[in-house]
Amino acid sequence: MTDRVLVSPAELFGDGVFETVHLRPDGPWLLDQHLARLSRSAARLGFTASTDEAAARVAALPPVITESALRIIQTRESLHVTVSPIPDSVRRERRSGIRVLSAAVGPRPPWSLSAAKTLSYGPNFAARRWAQAQGGDDCLWVSLDGYALEAPTASLVWLAGEELCSVPPEEAGILAGTTAAELLSRAGSAGLRPVFRMITLDELARADAIWFASALRGLAEVISLDGVARARSPWSPRLSALLGY
Amino acid sequence: MTDRVLVSPAELFGDGVFETVHLRPDGPWLLDQHLARLSRSAARLGFTASTDEAAARVAALPPVITESALRIIQTRESLHVTVSPIPDSVRRERRSGIRVLSAAVGPRPPWSLSAAKTLSYGPNFAARRWAQAQGGDDCLWVSLDGYALEAPTASLVWLAGEELCSVPPEEAGILAGTTAAELLSRAGSAGLRPVFRMITLDELARADAIWFASALRGLAEVISLDGVARARSPWSPRLSALLGY
Repeated sequence: MTDRVLVSPAELFGDGVFETVHLRPDGPWLLDQHLARLSRSAARLGFTASTDEAAARVAALPPVITESALRIIQTRESLHVTVSPIPDSVRRERRSGIRVLSAAVGPRPPWSLSAAKTLSYGPNFAARRWAQAQGGDDCLWVSLDGYALEAPTASLVWLAGEELCSVPPEEAGILAGTTAAELLSRAGSAGLRPVFRMITLDELARADAIWFASALRGLAEVISLDGVARARSPWSPRLSALLGY
Repeated sequence: MTDRVLVSPAELFGDGVFETVHLRPDGPWLLDQHLARLSRSAARLGFTASTDEAAARVAALPPVITESALRIIQTRESLHVTVSPIPDSVRRERRSGIRVLSAAVGPRPPWSLSAAKTLSYGPNFAARRWAQAQGGDDCLWVSLDGYALEAPTASLVWLAGEELCSVPPEEAGILAGTTAAELLSRAGSAGLRPVFRMITLDELARADAIWFASALRGLAEVISLDGVARARSPWSPRLSALLGY
């Protein structure tokens, strides 16, 4: 990321929220939706997000020439807005797809922050390192009773016939994906029917196509799931184009 | 905490480790043990802790007149050593004890960082807020099969007859408590026998006394567990004195 920021040591303990926004030459994409989620995340942590201030700082940014990563980070004490390049690994995953390993995660305790995008991101990084240590690129979290949930830094999207699907955030207790919701809202223009529903890992393995959706990657196609290779889908370039990636 | 620190935005994502040390007028208590744990925590996150540099910075601190909180914080990019006052709430908990609510936590995934003291402390704060919202002071994490594990920021210690007990960290997959280990190592001098063993919540409720052990609180006696009041133990002042609190 770009500049260094001055914080109190207490701000280093992951007790805040953030958003990653795809910053395009024509402006930050889906900014309102990201700010709304920042606000919901902060509310779950018991504080109020400075969304007006964040919007003002984003509006004051100079335009970018190439796509970039915009991060809006808010601790209980301060707000930070940063711009950084899209990592090469992200571009590669968009282009070449990702090998995914599934792993069960336990039921969430009553204070769970799993529906908030918090700065306590250590376990998310650790989950990806775990997948990478086994020759994968990323990890798919599955409930103890076998339902696919989400990835450490992305939402799950899949195609089943003419249905373009994602996991219902409230029912699953997961983060509501901004990119996935936008994709489903545009499904009709691609002749597909948007559906939010639960899916078991077994059923997912039989889907026509699977993607991880997030602001920087857009859609990264799952090219292998738990070691089983999957054919590339002709829908990957179509749906990516639909989202402007 | 005291001074502000300059960090990169990436350091705000909880992907580091820390230790809280009881800084006494005669020096930092159990510093070597805390540095050793910092090192183990960092290894679990895949990086090397700068323990020599941390020790040098701690040695260069001016002596304190009253007990204080020393924090050693290490991200993947930088090391921070800070000194701050002991919060009033901590002194109150030492003196008056704590009301504790238990809550089940799911089995840990393979990449779990639960044995590391990481900066992704948001869920720990959230667990305490959850307990406080129900009229408690703190929370006791219990496995799905009913075994007491640890608290969000403390280790569990209990007295059963002449046995002074704590939970075995490796077997339970929890953080190894520095204060609890020190207490058990000194149990003999109080005529007690130190035992690391698993205990169900039901059995714990019948213990002669229960404490939460941590560097700043020392021993905070559990004066109610899941709403059931517990008589104060004569061992609380004795064991606290044994540890120099």
